[in-house]
Amino acid sequence: MSMNNLGIVKRNIPRADRAAIDKLSRFGVATIHEAMGRVGLMKPYMRPIYAGAHLCGSAVTVLLQPGDNWMMHVAAEQLQEGDIVVAACSADNSDGFFGDLLATSFRARGGRGLVIEGGVRDVKDLAAMQFPVFSSAISAKGTVKATLGSVNIPLVCGGALVNPGDVVVADDDGVVVVPAALAQQVADSAEAREINEVGKRKRLAAGELGLDMYNMRETLAKAGLKYVD
Amino acid sequence: MSMNNLGIVKRNIPRADRAAIDKLSRFGVATIHEAMGRVGLMKPYMRPIYAGAHLCGSAVTVLLQPGDNWMMHVAAEQLQEGDIVVAACSADNSDGFFGDLLATSFRARGGRGLVIEGGVRDVKDLAAMQFPVFSSAISAKGTVKATLGSVNIPLVCGGALVNPGDVVVADDDGVVVVPAALAQQVADSAEAREINEVGKRKRLAAGELGLDMYNMRETLAKAGLKYVD
Amino acid sequence: MSMNNLGIVKRNIPRADRAAIDKLSRFGVATIHEAMGRVGLMKPYMRPIYAGAHLCGSAVTVLLQPGDNWMMHVAAEQLQEGDIVVAACSADNSDGFFGDLLATSFRARGGRGLVIEGGVRDVKDLAAMQFPVFSSAISAKGTVKATLGSVNIPLVCGGALVNPGDVVVADDDGVVVVPAALAQQVADSAEAREINEVGKRKRLAAGELGLDMYNMRETLAKAGLKYVD
Amino acid sequence: MSMNNLGIVKRNIPRADRAAIDKLSRFGVATIHEAMGRVGLMKPYMRPIYAGAHLCGSAVTVLLQPGDNWMMHVAAEQLQEGDIVVAACSADNSDGFFGDLLATSFRARGGRGLVIEGGVRDVKDLAAMQFPVFSSAISAKGTVKATLGSVNIPLVCGGALVNPGDVVVADDDGVVVVPAALAQQVADSAEAREINEVGKRKRLAAGELGLDMYNMRETLAKAGLKYVD
Amino acid sequence: MSMNNLGIVKRNIPRADRAAIDKLSRFGVATIHEAMGRVGLMKPYMRPIYAGAHLCGSAVTVLLQPGDNWMMHVAAEQLQEGDIVVAACSADNSDGFFGDLLATSFRARGGRGLVIEGGVRDVKDLAAMQFPVFSSAISAKGTVKATLGSVNIPLVCGGALVNPGDVVVADDDGVVVVPAALAQQVADSAEAREINEVGKRKRLAAGELGLDMYNMRETLAKAGLKYVD
Amino acid sequence: MSMNNLGIVKRNIPRADRAAIDKLSRFGVATIHEAMGRVGLMKPYMRPIYAGAHLCGSAVTVLLQPGDNWMMHVAAEQLQEGDIVVAACSADNSDGFFGDLLATSFRARGGRGLVIEGGVRDVKDLAAMQFPVFSSAISAKGTVKATLGSVNIPLVCGGALVNPGDVVVADDDGVVVVPAALAQQVADSAEAREINEVGKRKRLAAGELGLDMYNMRETLAKAGLKYVD
Repeated sequence: MSMNNLGIVKRNIPRADRAAIDKLSRFGVATIHEAMGRVGLMKPYMRPIYAGAHLCGSAVTVLLQPGDNWMMHVAAEQLQEGDIVVAACSADNSDGFFGDLLATSFRARGGRGLVIEGGVRDVKDLAAMQFPVFSSAISAKGTVKATLGSVNIPLVCGGALVNPGDVVVADDDGVVVVPAALAQQVADSAEAREINEVGKRKRLAAGELGLDMYNMRETLAKAGLKYVD
Repeated sequence: MSMNNLGIVKRNIPRADRAAIDKLSRFGVATIHEAMGRVGLMKPYMRPIYAGAHLCGSAVTVLLQPGDNWMMHVAAEQLQEGDIVVAACSADNSDGFFGDLLATSFRARGGRGLVIEGGVRDVKDLAAMQFPVFSSAISAKGTVKATLGSVNIPLVCGGALVNPGDVVVADDDGVVVVPAALAQQVADSAEAREINEVGKRKRLAAGELGLDMYNMRETLAKAGLKYVD
Repeated sequence: MSMNNLGIVKRNIPRADRAAIDKLSRFGVATIHEAMGRVGLMKPYMRPIYAGAHLCGSAVTVLLQPGDNWMMHVAAEQLQEGDIVVAACSADNSDGFFGDLLATSFRARGGRGLVIEGGVRDVKDLAAMQFPVFSSAISAKGTVKATLGSVNIPLVCGGALVNPGDVVVADDDGVVVVPAALAQQVADSAEAREINEVGKRKRLAAGELGLDMYNMRETLAKAGLKYVD
Repeated sequence: MSMNNLGIVKRNIPRADRAAIDKLSRFGVATIHEAMGRVGLMKPYMRPIYAGAHLCGSAVTVLLQPGDNWMMHVAAEQLQEGDIVVAACSADNSDGFFGDLLATSFRARGGRGLVIEGGVRDVKDLAAMQFPVFSSAISAKGTVKATLGSVNIPLVCGGALVNPGDVVVADDDGVVVVPAALAQQVADSAEAREINEVGKRKRLAAGELGLDMYNMRETLAKAGLKYVD
Repeated sequence: MSMNNLGIVKRNIPRADRAAIDKLSRFGVATIHEAMGRVGLMKPYMRPIYAGAHLCGSAVTVLLQPGDNWMMHVAAEQLQEGDIVVAACSADNSDGFFGDLLATSFRARGGRGLVIEGGVRDVKDLAAMQFPVFSSAISAKGTVKATLGSVNIPLVCGGALVNPGDVVVADDDGVVVVPAALAQQVADSAEAREINEVGKRKRLAAGELGLDMYNMRETLAKAGLKYVD
Repeated sequence: MSMNNLGIVKRNIPRADRAAIDKLSRFGVATIHEAMGRVGLMKPYMRPIYAGAHLCGSAVTVLLQPGDNWMMHVAAEQLQEGDIVVAACSADNSDGFFGDLLATSFRARGGRGLVIEGGVRDVKDLAAMQFPVFSSAISAKGTVKATLGSVNIPLVCGGALVNPGDVVVADDDGVVVVPAALAQQVADSAEAREINEVGKRKRLAAGELGLDMYNMRETLAKAGLKYVD
């Protein structure tokens, strides 16, 4: 076991099953998060750079240094069709690590989106390209290429652990990470939840109360809820 | 006087006059806030979850516990046509207390919007439904149903005191609370302000200076303002 | 040298060359920031109040006091065609110092936008007017007119030094300040960068890697980057 | 009912019972908050300006305007022996509204501390005077005396509703507000809790587990907790 | 592989070598972080609740739910001599999950400190007990015992991955996590660094410049540094 | 005029008069800020790393890059007896740019303190050395030496403009910057203020009200203040 995982690029990573990824892409982040048992969510400061951005794919991870986007170029070579780049920095830093040139490169190599705890720029161009990005900041500030980070090591992004090859799904509600080995199981569970919700939505729309639909009245009374006039 | 107002649902609350609410709904939050004498505004971190969201109605208040949205279901039963749910949590918490199912239920029961110091999810669906929500956070994270809060007690939301039945108005500029007893008076005053502004806008558009229109030059000179070249 | 630059309005300020401003207006903030040598950028909390807002012009600076927008009216008189008002406050304050009436006045006097470390209101109206505003906050809260600040003194806004007459450019990526004396030089440099990027974008879109295009492989190896399987 | 409670000084306010205040002063904020039923706590950003600060007394409330401490002087006249000034501002503002001169004045008039959502200065002197202050900010920035606020109106401070005459207690754990009418009841309840805790502390110190002392094992098992090796 | 790691208590965890832990305890967090290769550090918002707090031990991890400290009691039973509890919550929450009673219990069972992304209370008592705590918040607000989390699962705390049995070291500079398998190696490396620093400190104290001691002048000149008068 | 002031070290800078600096060192930041006419203050997030830290001296400025403290070593050579290093970074970054080794070096070269918008580490050692530091963050995270910044250029630190040679004064209340040319004048004015305050403090301590001492009653009445019972 090495003491230091800086300066490393892992080339062969196992990726989640494509069919499972495709199935997961049909569900919202909130549904997937519930299907996961309410774990795996990034913190709410990870936001889309344009309304309606959505992504779902297998993670290629990048550890950056503050003010330095060198490893983004290294990561580009490791992309395969459908991959999502998940980038974190060794310190909080809002610099613009990513812009339309890198997006062009990522897309050409198969990349389908970016999740970054850090800043991005050229957001108007990225929106025009419909290249989905979820970030903790937007900043025009450029970066240098001077210090090594790593590609495809496990890392913490937005407060969530991401292993290379995990499925990353993001929409207006946030970003969730599904371990590769659980992708199919979570997709199936999400589907079941969604089917189940259709019926509930219909009943609620008809005016039925959650109090009755979920049989809450007795538990509430036991817990001591009192109605007063 | 009880020491504890947790676990209480107040059923019969006085609501602001419907005609006054309707009149208030014609004015912006900035205008109403001025008409109130510059009080009653929530803090600026209360933001619409989609651009253009607007709401105006009588408040049904909900006190939540962190990570727990049980009381939202209790509140649904207390809604009447035109009500706005105003929810606060006993601690800062960005969890997604509210999503499209609850919105469906609220709407079916007469609810016309939500103001919440806390998080919400399913924002894409809520925008599609055009169900207006003003919140302090967006998060996919779900909640449990385990601990009692209260419904229709006075509470502090976004730094403002809200009593059940107060009128709550929200737009892109923020959220303002109008005590029920003042609704008509504030609506009238807002109308007067708006009429007054039409004339001012015309004069300013024609190039007249505020310095002259508001007669500021003398006061500025007295205060010591110096012009230099 | 006076100890105190409060209560001062400087009338005759040198403005950046109009042709240089016009040329700068064709480039994005990220490009201009790079062309400046990566300096002059405001902090990322300075954000557009509506998506797509863009401004470029010569700065008229305003120092405000918390909760007080008196100096905004004084500034209106100093505007010339194409000017941008850059406002800062002597303390962090999110009050709505600016709304649609002032925007109407500024526009009538030649003002073409506002950059403010502070709050603004009437954002729906401002968006409808397409009057570009970049601010650190949005708030319906109004202000008084009681305490002197200054107009056209050097000030710090969003963490950047702004001298009256500097060129201020802002878009979705942020706000950058170009000293008047450098405007032409920066515009030329930005143009050169943009031409250069066209070629790069084409190569990256064709699948060429930044690693090869920028000759990074050797430097990365020297820095110790290791590829593992 | 007036639409506007700015510019008002209420002179005769009911104060909580002195004996109840004295009894409350013996307990920590965490204990009192529990005794209250877990309500009445200010947000955690309200912090002591020096370690070990502690206060307990009857509230005289002050509503300030941003950058303006005029009402602090008006409040000084309303103080009686043992009073605590509780100040809030109509907008978030970190200016130094209070320093050693006002502390000297407050103390001379009977004031025993300050709780302020806003800034204070002269903290070294205040610590030397052992004048307890809990604030949301520290700032050397001075204020003007130009705009009216109010004294002894109900207000929201640190997210909690404070009525004049309520008991305010603050220590290293935060600030809690006890409605005047509940002061004795809460003090008694706090005392009971503290006595109860003595026994618990002894048992825990002897190595007994909370799992056993609180009989949690069965409930945990029912909730589904699983032990694995 | 289970989809859900909520509701699990792992009893037998491997712990880092005691001698390695003891050696690590002699070094500061900054030194250990450097010895690790600049990884493993928690975010800077993790702060000691009293000046001078220091801890070093083997981690017992606890995943909490917002507003709920049930799992803290479950964790107490899993403690062995010298352990440090590392707690995170499924959502940002500043509630006081921990106070002097739990500290008494932890200490009685061998616990030697707490690192928590969340709030704590009774800080005066904890300081008096000299029970070291590093947290993201201080709050008097109590919690309930209603929802399951887990004990001794891998978790993310303060932005760092923590596995049960890892060594956690914390002082005024922050908190660092050393994987159990690397503890001895990092301790040795930290010792070497510290010995090396003694010599450097002496030379710097004598007025020698880092520019000369680290031979920076040539590299700086090559990078283009220019001295002007 | 150069477009780029990165990579520059200015060697000969004018320093404020030593006698004026010595006189300024006798006054608190709040007093100096008032004497300046309420300008020149850094933002309140600039805080001392240990209670009671105080510094006053002539500024040597350093512009850093994120994650990189190379320029600190360059700055050390430019120090003269009594200088204060004022450092800012081209982006918000909490890394530990400074620790006890650099403090040792700075002190040996005449440095008497540090003001930095950025992070520092070894705070326990720095406190033991009584080397005063005011920073925006504390972090154990180390930095690299790879990218040029500048020394002794004008820069913005904590929201205030600092020119090399300006006097910087910092204490528990914050940090204030006095332009070199104004140092003597501000010191004299601060002295006058302090003498004046002695008398006021005595009168307030005797129970006289600010309302009377400052003749506020009439102005308050004119502004519309109403006393009610």
